[in-house]
Amino acid sequence: MTLSRETVEHRLEEIIRQAWHTHALYFSHTPRSSVEEVLNLVKEQAVSSNQGGKRLRALTLMQTAYTFCPEEVRIDDSALLDLACAIEIFQTAALIHDDIMDDADTRRGAPSAHKALAVQTSASQGQGLALMLGDLLATLSIRVAFTASHKLSNSDEIFRTFLAMHDQVEIGQIMDVSMETIELTDTDAIESSIWATYINKTASYTTIAPLLIGILASSHPQISQNAQSFAQSVGNDLGVAFQIHDDLIDILSDSQTTGKPVGGDIREGKRTLLLARALQLASPHDRDTLLVKFEHTAHRDKEDVEIIRTIFHRSGAIDSLIDEVDKLWQRAAHAVLTTCMMHDISPEKTQALITMCSHFIN
Amino acid sequence: MTLSRETVEHRLEEIIRQAWHTHALYFSHTPRSSVEEVLNLVKEQAVSSNQGGKRLRALTLMQTAYTFCPEEVRIDDSALLDLACAIEIFQTAALIHDDIMDDADTRRGAPSAHKALAVQTSASQGQGLALMLGDLLATLSIRVAFTASHKLSNSDEIFRTFLAMHDQVEIGQIMDVSMETIELTDTDAIESSIWATYINKTASYTTIAPLLIGILASSHPQISQNAQSFAQSVGNDLGVAFQIHDDLIDILSDSQTTGKPVGGDIREGKRTLLLARALQLASPHDRDTLLVKFEHTAHRDKEDVEIIRTIFHRSGAIDSLIDEVDKLWQRAAHAVLTTCMMHDISPEKTQALITMCSHFIN
Repeated sequence: MTLSRETVEHRLEEIIRQAWHTHALYFSHTPRSSVEEVLNLVKEQAVSSNQGGKRLRALTLMQTAYTFCPEEVRIDDSALLDLACAIEIFQTAALIHDDIMDDADTRRGAPSAHKALAVQTSASQGQGLALMLGDLLATLSIRVAFTASHKLSNSDEIFRTFLAMHDQVEIGQIMDVSMETIELTDTDAIESSIWATYINKTASYTTIAPLLIGILASSHPQISQNAQSFAQSVGNDLGVAFQIHDDLIDILSDSQTTGKPVGGDIREGKRTLLLARALQLASPHDRDTLLVKFEHTAHRDKEDVEIIRTIFHRSGAIDSLIDEVDKLWQRAAHAVLTTCMMHDISPEKTQALITMCSHFIN
Repeated sequence: MTLSRETVEHRLEEIIRQAWHTHALYFSHTPRSSVEEVLNLVKEQAVSSNQGGKRLRALTLMQTAYTFCPEEVRIDDSALLDLACAIEIFQTAALIHDDIMDDADTRRGAPSAHKALAVQTSASQGQGLALMLGDLLATLSIRVAFTASHKLSNSDEIFRTFLAMHDQVEIGQIMDVSMETIELTDTDAIESSIWATYINKTASYTTIAPLLIGILASSHPQISQNAQSFAQSVGNDLGVAFQIHDDLIDILSDSQTTGKPVGGDIREGKRTLLLARALQLASPHDRDTLLVKFEHTAHRDKEDVEIIRTIFHRSGAIDSLIDEVDKLWQRAAHAVLTTCMMHDISPEKTQALITMCSHFIN
């Protein structure tokens, strides 16, 4: 099977439409009415909310399985693709709930689900519908993973890993919310809490689960046994690197590239590693400015964003995190390489996995 | 095993605490900080949100399994109890999300989860934390059902039924939201849409799934084959009867019994079967009053509630629905009786199941 973004995108839409076809049976006795219109709205939102991602998680899961799959084993390609799609569906579910929590206006350059659904209904109905859409997609992701894992090796472990991934992301989100209550003056506590949050809310489903599930599905007898430690050692570093890289994009690029307004994290007052690092490295005066802007100001306007960006640069926080991403990436790539060599994986397959991983920070 | 509310309540708390013990591992490297305090808040909310239900769903599932279980078969009691708890955990998850959607202040006589969590944080943080708590409990319910079903007969079918129940309730909630958009003048469309909503959002997990899963877990070879049709025929009627009975309690009793303010449904402008029936039966003048109060008035105050209650009585809508509950109950009880007799279930076991079912409307 060719590993391409389009293959994932195509199958994803197929799964969503098929699921809604089944959901529709629950209201088959309802007469044509406004109820049906609303249900259709939600279906179309399910399809469009699932569009437009880079599908790195799905592709990494599949590439990992193909890299470690022994020559004599034939993986069920379509089951593997479905399993990969399950992670993408879960991500969409998580993002829809995340956007409700942050009351975000946009996602991937389009209106967020609850805002889009509010247009044709009302603000509170839009929120309610998006909440349920997130729940439906979360359940769908679990059903798809359950069915697909049955056709692959280590099915029980794959499925339990998938459920644990759900938990970990939700715990990570709770950490993220609680991060807003943390004292910004305690810079060490902030940095370690943010690091833990990044691992739980991002690395968990972005890199750790795709690597772990990919290995379990590969049927490789030895690597499967050490799947956990491999996925943790590579996935933690790579996933955190990805999140830091994402934070940096928010500061360094323009809104056309990201589909989000520049400095959105600053505006929302998000506790990022960049903020923590700047608080550690900035001059006393700049540090006080950051504390005032983040602790005692409810909203940061355009001018604030510029002041804060300047401090992020001047303090060396940005350079320090660019180095950090590089260091994390080197360590992750080295761990992939070592494991592949130890288990006699061909140079081609090794390179394919390393290249795939590199997309997370490019 | 003795079937009691306390047995379910006890095991439920055990499961929740155990799950949070596992969740805690995800933040074991976080230093003691406000993050940990927030996570503890969420844990305690998980425990208290799960307290205080009547556990009818859990008990019905278990009673169904014991009623149909052939003499020579030994059911794994603790797996069955866990499966029953899984439905209760799912209900708690659904109610937490439901309360966010309705922005409800109370639940089971205590503050709703998002309101309780907002007290120690902020309104928006409370909402975010409750949203994630609902997600965590939904995932937990699935994990518990997965593990328990493995130790029972028809495990795959039980688990798929459990996932389908999640879907159906979420679709029912979407129908419930969209019901607000329906034209109140089209009384036939309203009544049939509300009926469909009641089946999806209430009967699905209150009666249909407990009966269906209970039968599947019973290992009875013949009844298992017709589990679907039995669960539908009994569960639809009984579940709708339960929901109508619940709607009537909202009108007829005082707030001390329900833990909710009287006439809460009226205040919220909910589209209930009672409203639909009153619109059909009321005099033209009363009907116009209802239309004005429900379609053109955003909030209904105490005086409005009294006017509407009077119309509900005077129109005969309340009497009509009391009859309806009775009719539905008779039909459900008859279906249980017929099936039990057809399969030579003992009179004691038959009576135990019928008594259990009767609690839904008492």
